[in-house]
Amino acid sequence: MGQVKVPAEHLWGAQTQRSLIHFSIGNDRMPIEVYHAYGYVKKAAAIVNERLGHLPKETADLIVKSADEVIAGMLDANFPLYVWQTGSGTQSNMNVNEVISNRAIQIVNGTVGTQAPVHPNDHVNMSQSSNDTFPTAMHIAAVKEIKETLLPKVQALQAEIVSKATLWERIVKIGRTHLEDAVPLTVGQEWSGYAMQIHNALERVEGSLTGMYQLAAGGTAVGTGLNTPKQFGQDVAEEIANLTGCPFITARNKFEAQGSLDAIVAAHASLRGLAVALMKIANDMRWLGSGPRCGIGELILPENEPGSSIMPGKVNPTQCEAIVMICIQVIGNDTAVAFAGSQGNFELNAMRPIIIKNFLHSARILADGCEKFLTYSVQGTQVNEKKIAEYLEKSLMLVTALSPVIGYDNASKIAHTAHHDGSTLRQAAIKTQLIDGATFDKVVNPLQMVGDTALSLP
Amino acid sequence: MGQVKVPAEHLWGAQTQRSLIHFSIGNDRMPIEVYHAYGYVKKAAAIVNERLGHLPKETADLIVKSADEVIAGMLDANFPLYVWQTGSGTQSNMNVNEVISNRAIQIVNGTVGTQAPVHPNDHVNMSQSSNDTFPTAMHIAAVKEIKETLLPKVQALQAEIVSKATLWERIVKIGRTHLEDAVPLTVGQEWSGYAMQIHNALERVEGSLTGMYQLAAGGTAVGTGLNTPKQFGQDVAEEIANLTGCPFITARNKFEAQGSLDAIVAAHASLRGLAVALMKIANDMRWLGSGPRCGIGELILPENEPGSSIMPGKVNPTQCEAIVMICIQVIGNDTAVAFAGSQGNFELNAMRPIIIKNFLHSARILADGCEKFLTYSVQGTQVNEKKIAEYLEKSLMLVTALSPVIGYDNASKIAHTAHHDGSTLRQAAIKTQLIDGATFDKVVNPLQMVGDTALSLP
Amino acid sequence: MGQVKVPAEHLWGAQTQRSLIHFSIGNDRMPIEVYHAYGYVKKAAAIVNERLGHLPKETADLIVKSADEVIAGMLDANFPLYVWQTGSGTQSNMNVNEVISNRAIQIVNGTVGTQAPVHPNDHVNMSQSSNDTFPTAMHIAAVKEIKETLLPKVQALQAEIVSKATLWERIVKIGRTHLEDAVPLTVGQEWSGYAMQIHNALERVEGSLTGMYQLAAGGTAVGTGLNTPKQFGQDVAEEIANLTGCPFITARNKFEAQGSLDAIVAAHASLRGLAVALMKIANDMRWLGSGPRCGIGELILPENEPGSSIMPGKVNPTQCEAIVMICIQVIGNDTAVAFAGSQGNFELNAMRPIIIKNFLHSARILADGCEKFLTYSVQGTQVNEKKIAEYLEKSLMLVTALSPVIGYDNASKIAHTAHHDGSTLRQAAIKTQLIDGATFDKVVNPLQMVGDTALSLP
Amino acid sequence: MGQVKVPAEHLWGAQTQRSLIHFSIGNDRMPIEVYHAYGYVKKAAAIVNERLGHLPKETADLIVKSADEVIAGMLDANFPLYVWQTGSGTQSNMNVNEVISNRAIQIVNGTVGTQAPVHPNDHVNMSQSSNDTFPTAMHIAAVKEIKETLLPKVQALQAEIVSKATLWERIVKIGRTHLEDAVPLTVGQEWSGYAMQIHNALERVEGSLTGMYQLAAGGTAVGTGLNTPKQFGQDVAEEIANLTGCPFITARNKFEAQGSLDAIVAAHASLRGLAVALMKIANDMRWLGSGPRCGIGELILPENEPGSSIMPGKVNPTQCEAIVMICIQVIGNDTAVAFAGSQGNFELNAMRPIIIKNFLHSARILADGCEKFLTYSVQGTQVNEKKIAEYLEKSLMLVTALSPVIGYDNASKIAHTAHHDGSTLRQAAIKTQLIDGATFDKVVNPLQMVGDTALSLP
Repeated sequence: MGQVKVPAEHLWGAQTQRSLIHFSIGNDRMPIEVYHAYGYVKKAAAIVNERLGHLPKETADLIVKSADEVIAGMLDANFPLYVWQTGSGTQSNMNVNEVISNRAIQIVNGTVGTQAPVHPNDHVNMSQSSNDTFPTAMHIAAVKEIKETLLPKVQALQAEIVSKATLWERIVKIGRTHLEDAVPLTVGQEWSGYAMQIHNALERVEGSLTGMYQLAAGGTAVGTGLNTPKQFGQDVAEEIANLTGCPFITARNKFEAQGSLDAIVAAHASLRGLAVALMKIANDMRWLGSGPRCGIGELILPENEPGSSIMPGKVNPTQCEAIVMICIQVIGNDTAVAFAGSQGNFELNAMRPIIIKNFLHSARILADGCEKFLTYSVQGTQVNEKKIAEYLEKSLMLVTALSPVIGYDNASKIAHTAHHDGSTLRQAAIKTQLIDGATFDKVVNPLQMVGDTALSLP
Repeated sequence: MGQVKVPAEHLWGAQTQRSLIHFSIGNDRMPIEVYHAYGYVKKAAAIVNERLGHLPKETADLIVKSADEVIAGMLDANFPLYVWQTGSGTQSNMNVNEVISNRAIQIVNGTVGTQAPVHPNDHVNMSQSSNDTFPTAMHIAAVKEIKETLLPKVQALQAEIVSKATLWERIVKIGRTHLEDAVPLTVGQEWSGYAMQIHNALERVEGSLTGMYQLAAGGTAVGTGLNTPKQFGQDVAEEIANLTGCPFITARNKFEAQGSLDAIVAAHASLRGLAVALMKIANDMRWLGSGPRCGIGELILPENEPGSSIMPGKVNPTQCEAIVMICIQVIGNDTAVAFAGSQGNFELNAMRPIIIKNFLHSARILADGCEKFLTYSVQGTQVNEKKIAEYLEKSLMLVTALSPVIGYDNASKIAHTAHHDGSTLRQAAIKTQLIDGATFDKVVNPLQMVGDTALSLP
Repeated sequence: MGQVKVPAEHLWGAQTQRSLIHFSIGNDRMPIEVYHAYGYVKKAAAIVNERLGHLPKETADLIVKSADEVIAGMLDANFPLYVWQTGSGTQSNMNVNEVISNRAIQIVNGTVGTQAPVHPNDHVNMSQSSNDTFPTAMHIAAVKEIKETLLPKVQALQAEIVSKATLWERIVKIGRTHLEDAVPLTVGQEWSGYAMQIHNALERVEGSLTGMYQLAAGGTAVGTGLNTPKQFGQDVAEEIANLTGCPFITARNKFEAQGSLDAIVAAHASLRGLAVALMKIANDMRWLGSGPRCGIGELILPENEPGSSIMPGKVNPTQCEAIVMICIQVIGNDTAVAFAGSQGNFELNAMRPIIIKNFLHSARILADGCEKFLTYSVQGTQVNEKKIAEYLEKSLMLVTALSPVIGYDNASKIAHTAHHDGSTLRQAAIKTQLIDGATFDKVVNPLQMVGDTALSLP
Repeated sequence: MGQVKVPAEHLWGAQTQRSLIHFSIGNDRMPIEVYHAYGYVKKAAAIVNERLGHLPKETADLIVKSADEVIAGMLDANFPLYVWQTGSGTQSNMNVNEVISNRAIQIVNGTVGTQAPVHPNDHVNMSQSSNDTFPTAMHIAAVKEIKETLLPKVQALQAEIVSKATLWERIVKIGRTHLEDAVPLTVGQEWSGYAMQIHNALERVEGSLTGMYQLAAGGTAVGTGLNTPKQFGQDVAEEIANLTGCPFITARNKFEAQGSLDAIVAAHASLRGLAVALMKIANDMRWLGSGPRCGIGELILPENEPGSSIMPGKVNPTQCEAIVMICIQVIGNDTAVAFAGSQGNFELNAMRPIIIKNFLHSARILADGCEKFLTYSVQGTQVNEKKIAEYLEKSLMLVTALSPVIGYDNASKIAHTAHHDGSTLRQAAIKTQLIDGATFDKVVNPLQMVGDTALSLP
């Protein structure tokens, strides 16, 4: 394959350099979280290889030391590769092998690039293949992103929505179905629905971790564990569990774990589920906050910035728009992830880089988006009680309460009369002589109509 | 492969029967339009084969006669196959070959199933393969559906929107951007935008026909035209053009025409473009019609049916909802079509049935949906001039007209003052002493602000 | 709204008829499973309403009797509505109300259409709204389809794959990664991966049922339970659980249950997960079966039908192609479902018909597809042991076993030598003098290289 | 809204700073190409405003000077905003306004931030709104990316494929349909199909530019052109056409141009069309290159890098895999783009940032991917003539040539006999006594079977 020169200031080696030359496509770099995760893999492998008597203690210690620096982000600048590379992620695995090898050599004042005393393949990659370690790193990176970033940020949003629901527990408002006026509910009830949507979505995200706790490591090239001690898969998963504090275990079936990416495809679907829920909530908020004078105007969203370069004084629901766009992006990413997940062949699904890129992208923009949405939109949102009361008063759908008393068809007549006369329901009810004023007042009572105002919160 | 019994009452043969047994999956049948289109292919092939001296006149005449019955829909009951079959469509081609063979035999009082005097392969399929004729039939079916059904129905909708735009040419209303009050425009201008969206979408649909006018027929098994007279491809395309009245030509490169389905994938993308446009329009209509008392309420949509089983008198924008769902389905179908389009291998894209099924499905529900939307929603839609005038009067964004006079920052101050005081713009303007009443009245004139009310219509 | 005439031979009423007129779009009818599910809802509601003292016993009995006929499919012809209708499903709910009302009237020899003694709204729909009962029916229909059709059919496929894996447990074959020759594994190991993929996919499908066991019934119009006895939601869910034998419960939060469709969106994502897995398996099978002479040819798939209308004797992997197309359709449907799931507003997601249509479609074609795939492809598949042995013998990647002995770089030299000389690995190994023949023979032992042949099966 | 501090080293102002604080979500920045395009907009606007007498010459000159620096990329560091911001792109427009204002102030040694002598809104944004200029900048950026980057890079790939097709014009090979052996064609014919696929895809991309040449500028806030000279839209489009050398014109209907993003949605669909075509080609290449000993092996792809960290000497089709992943990403991006395109409301589609981000992303990775694919895969690809000849010789499907002579059914018998005996076609033909050896030799001639070897190239 000829020679390739690596600039002296870098710790990476020839294989990384080749990849840089052959695959400098766009701006999409392999996410740094993958390399941090790989740090755990290499560290755990060195520990286990040493324990099982395959790697001298000094070599193992050097690998561990260097891997710790990878994990800590100290060597980030040495991981320059692009997403659009070999579908197995081999080039990123070799990047890690080369950097750990060279960093270890550096530590002992050796000559970088000599592959001694720590060889990238024979030592750093010992008992491993890209085929089993790359999906292992994918799972570690994905799980950590979910647990350490996504869940806390979205749970904080959920908590604020719960607190808003509680705050507005007894404000009665008109409901809307098909965008049309319907019967009343409380603002708290409406927001309790949002809280429950997020709660359920997160429960599904957490449920999807089970599949991702299974690690392929130990399967090596095709799942048989060739060139790997029998014990290796189980031990390395245990070690990774210890190092990360997450309940990783070795995958039951390595052929499935390397030939497919089904677990992470399912996990991304749960991120999409969160997107689907958030989109509804953000859309509700911007519609309820529309106006201020020619829209619905039940909510007052915080004014964070001037909304228009030409219309002075305009304020827009920009946080909601950002969330909506993020949700759409996640749904688009999901198409890519599922498609890629279906394109495995034989002992390898060679669509790994695109999947982990999209997974981490989705998780990250959802997490950060929710954080901003919480801080700059939900927290400062207020109800316009005057407007809410006005709508409630003039709505025609309070007529529904009359159905059990005078029947659906008669109630319908009253609603139509009021609608066409432009009158109130009460006026129309009396005009049609279908019910008397006193009964009307007793039955058509919005507060009563909302039923139990105690909230079902997550 | 053993024996297979075909019920005597059918004109199909063993290969159709085998497919029925092996592929009875769900309820999706190969669309009947594909068979009608295949009628043209078989008829044209018989004519050309006879003309080139390969088929005796009597045989050709019998095939033509039977094919005419296929085209006319008289033999529809004999095409029972499912979509989920061989990816080349061979089974549907053989279904046609068998039915035409047997129908021809029937015409001459022969014994159905004897393959004489008209053999399904040697005569009906002469100079053909499924590999070139199935995509030919796909293109014919797709083009006819577009030209005969989709375009007229959607153009009728466009015409009605144009007529509504003209009708409402001088009604000034408040504009909305980000769902928030903005500067004014006329209802006619707003609807002219809808008309132009549809016009452009249809222009793209029509543009996509160019690719579909190219027919694969003549390429036979792999594109080389094996077992086919040199002249055949060009002649059969001409014949099909004559028979259908559409400018079909023979594909420039048969390897492309059989190994890919790119032309119809692009054509479906243009249907999706129409869906994207229609979804915006239908959404606008249902939001503008929301209420009647607690929504925007600028439009009054026709009351076609009771909207609720529990809320008497409720009316919902059901036609808009149907359109929105249709558009989403088309967007989903488009994912399937593009995915399938990418999955060709070597000399054949074996994802044909799924693509033509989704194509015809999308075209049909868009066409029918627009027809109903036109008849039961757009036609009867009215503007609520009172509401429109109210909004216009109280909007704050008329302040924008002041910018060129007093600057963006001063205009902004007036808008904020009015917003926070709940006052009118004029009151706030005077209060801030940034402009006097007379100048205000001169500058802040909604009708002037909408500019040229003459409409740019398609 | 004027009058509408209902043909005398039908049991449906005016609202159904109006929908038929306004929404005859394409060929997509509301799936009959939705109506059967609705039968359970109406029956359970009548029982509970009677028990709580709201409905006279005779009326309840008549409703129950008619609902039983709906459940049994005896009234199927009376449910003609299209999918593309009101987004709440109200028209289909009213269709059920009208049919049960009229059928009850018929039973007591009353006059159909008189709404007495059983009124469609006041009695059949008592304590209900479309807004809570339609998603209830969706969940019932979806759960039943999964449990009664999909799971058994796909589990049967899984069982056959397990049995094939066991049968081929000790046949060593060359592995392939990136489509390129890799190290060996057994055919049994490869198929154990398929079995595990399906197992995991089904586990995710079953996991998604949890969300669908939650029923909205009891929330009525907007989730507050207006016009409904407090007990109703819980009781009706219990009753439905009894009737169906599935562990349905009342939804914790009705605002979530009616304002979103998140649970069924998640359930469809699990169907998509199954599609992603199946697509990989079907693709592997058709590639491994490619040939017979110019492809990979390790598997011999059953010859079910002639493959070509022009190429005599051709046999194609048609069942695999059908599965691939089905999987792509499910992935396309999933785009539609997620999109629709995100489009809810306020107290209602008005995209229900499209979601249940796509859900039942996906479940059905997956189930039927797997049944045919099992019967007509997997069951009859054989291994071509001769071909498998040939490949194994000539593969270069057995060199990998040498890595732990002579190092990665030396092993690499041997592989390259063999590749460029066209020699065997052994010849190249000896030529390079990097290892002697005896050691080579000891180390490079394919059976040894596959490790533990005991299978990890689901 | 309170005060916000802008770090002194930056040229941006308060609105940019606010956006940075409120929207630091993930790593997705508004693509720099959008700002360069905006440079043209601001320059053209200043020129036209000055010409129409609205802007003093000195102010216009200063804006032009600063805009030139924006266009030249000299101020790139001052455009830090994120994609996930306001859906109109207002914050990026204000970023440009602020930077140009401050840079102009800097040029005249004024005090940055004083808005004098060049005010960001009153001068830089004169006659403009984000609502009309952001889509204008989107179109300019998209058109330039297509014309200057995508088209040349993909055309170079097409040219190389054409040259390969010509080079291999007379090498006869076995065709494959359904992955199964079929009748022969030349390698040149196969590659001519690839060339034509790309040609057609690019033609569709170029066709989609027509829609993007229409610019919204001149519509200002809602499409009416409020606060804009009548002439402005047309003049500014002409000016932009002059500056960029692309035939931009003013949009026929500004309400369509601002309320929808249909033109760019359609343009992205054409990029997806290219992805669909490329995916087929890249897949063909990696399958044809599979092996080297246990796959198809007709092509020999260049060995660019070691393929495996564990399997020495392994070479993988990594460039093809990168292309496949890129194509899948573009298809996923397309889902996001179409979804976002459907979500406009009233006078604005507020999903602009997500659409331009995905558009430029898709165009860029397709362009760069094709460049690498060309250089590191297609260019160095060789045919394995020995293997190709072997396949041709043993294939059974040459039997097809016998059909016109002895009929489909007899030919079929010969193929089956050969298949089951493992004999050659010739042996089987003679054994079945259906044809004599001499006739066989005359008819079954692969070179003859491929028909006209002259290529139909784009």
